[in-house]
Amino acid sequence: MPVNVLFAARPERWETYEAPLRTALSEAGVAANLATKMPAHEVDYIVYAPNSGVEDFAPFTRAKAVLNLWAGVEDVVGNPTLHLPLARMVDHGLTQGMVEWVTGHVLRHHLGMDAHILGQDGIWRKDIPPLAQDRRVTMLGLGALGQACASALGRLGFAMTGWSRSQKEIDGVTCLSGEQGLRSALQVADILVLLLPLTGDTENILNEETLAYLPRGTVIVNPGRGPLIDDNALLAVLDSGDVGHATLDVFREEPLPPEHPYWAHPRVTVTPHIASETRPKSASQVIAENIRRGEAGEPFLHLVDRNLGY
Amino acid sequence: MPVNVLFAARPERWETYEAPLRTALSEAGVAANLATKMPAHEVDYIVYAPNSGVEDFAPFTRAKAVLNLWAGVEDVVGNPTLHLPLARMVDHGLTQGMVEWVTGHVLRHHLGMDAHILGQDGIWRKDIPPLAQDRRVTMLGLGALGQACASALGRLGFAMTGWSRSQKEIDGVTCLSGEQGLRSALQVADILVLLLPLTGDTENILNEETLAYLPRGTVIVNPGRGPLIDDNALLAVLDSGDVGHATLDVFREEPLPPEHPYWAHPRVTVTPHIASETRPKSASQVIAENIRRGEAGEPFLHLVDRNLGY
Repeated sequence: MPVNVLFAARPERWETYEAPLRTALSEAGVAANLATKMPAHEVDYIVYAPNSGVEDFAPFTRAKAVLNLWAGVEDVVGNPTLHLPLARMVDHGLTQGMVEWVTGHVLRHHLGMDAHILGQDGIWRKDIPPLAQDRRVTMLGLGALGQACASALGRLGFAMTGWSRSQKEIDGVTCLSGEQGLRSALQVADILVLLLPLTGDTENILNEETLAYLPRGTVIVNPGRGPLIDDNALLAVLDSGDVGHATLDVFREEPLPPEHPYWAHPRVTVTPHIASETRPKSASQVIAENIRRGEAGEPFLHLVDRNLGY
Repeated sequence: MPVNVLFAARPERWETYEAPLRTALSEAGVAANLATKMPAHEVDYIVYAPNSGVEDFAPFTRAKAVLNLWAGVEDVVGNPTLHLPLARMVDHGLTQGMVEWVTGHVLRHHLGMDAHILGQDGIWRKDIPPLAQDRRVTMLGLGALGQACASALGRLGFAMTGWSRSQKEIDGVTCLSGEQGLRSALQVADILVLLLPLTGDTENILNEETLAYLPRGTVIVNPGRGPLIDDNALLAVLDSGDVGHATLDVFREEPLPPEHPYWAHPRVTVTPHIASETRPKSASQVIAENIRRGEAGEPFLHLVDRNLGY
């Protein structure tokens, strides 16, 4: 008997995902009835995106799992009606895209590219940048995305420090954890990259107090989550020049409102949440594999720890 | 008896190199008399930079080798008075700096960064760039620098094609050679990087005919040598939009004169020959090792083939 898979996301997602999901399910050997509407009590799996309209999971009496379309689960993990296993998206395409964006923007700041992109005034200013080995980059967050980016930057030669809640070990990265570790990680950051999950503990992790630990002129790169940063505290240190630049891809409110001071700030680059996007083909394969596992009685991949929130 | 090493370069180079060269020679176990002036017939080794003033090598009757301070040898290789072995500089620092600059500018164009750096107008344009695996990058030149850059870009996931005079084999890079190979390599170049040596065969290798092989909108990145490009031919295809952008680090005349059309062209980024610079510490170690080898009767490293010109 085919499994019933409810695709609970906005209509434009369905247009993008229907074909690759059907292909991936078929390739995984799963006979599935895939649709955007079906009676809740008949649903076996929920492919889920926030803003899908599904907010009450109670009617899904026989469902086996909620399979999130995206990496971040902060909009669903605290839902009191959700007692099903919840899997994050860990997509090769998403990770790869993030590595490209983070590596590109770290190199941009490392090489001082903006001076040449913005400053074609006919004056030959031969300032040789230091080598990557003399540039200290700190990565906050060493989950799947943070590890992949830290490793890529380490392979390029950057002097990498990483920080995470629990102690990690990664080749070529000095790993720190805990409160004191956070302070140490910030104190050596010429360039600071934020790839933490958004939880109660990480919200506003960059605030007036922690921003003060950074060396003068640090560049902040945030492709993680907007609320990791206290925006007013950041604007204050950008105004004073204590922080040299911020390249921000994520915001408390998206799209970032046109009147937000980040847009016009000379020390801020706004990118419109493009650092990484789940890619339909590879993401569909991850979802199909989890459904295959559920049907075969094997453990799900990428399950969220409801206590940790990620 | 100490060997006599003549440092033949401009005075500001001596300031930079004297200390690291003395350290490197001492660490290599070479007792040396290092100076910027000594009688030509007493010189054992010439550490050499173009514009040093040394143009006639005939008086250096007992010298064993000319050790070039830089990677490019086009200003000395054709000198008719030079019959000594000539070694290029192959410096870890130079290679590493080149990898960083090339990777950074390829990612800049791949990610479409300029739109965000230049266009902070409050409008949220969510154009997701393709993944590197769907971006075709062609490297012309697969010497030490070209190979290192091609490998780094391949590791980041780019679809890499490489072209060189003689056929090479490099992991993760589709290698082509010869006339027909050049055409094929250009035809698949979304981004084209030039890292060829400058020889009679490679001067103006990008000209009206070869530029026409590129797909519309190609981005050209030249950290190699200025004369690899026919400047008028490039300006014509930039004006027409057939070539989307050129990021140029090297020029026929340096510093690039303020009135040169490259400075003001909206599709050109000029960088002031910073893609890579020999780093005094690591370069001094390369020179000291070659002097040690010469004294021990071992073959020199990085010798130039006078017929090939590099």
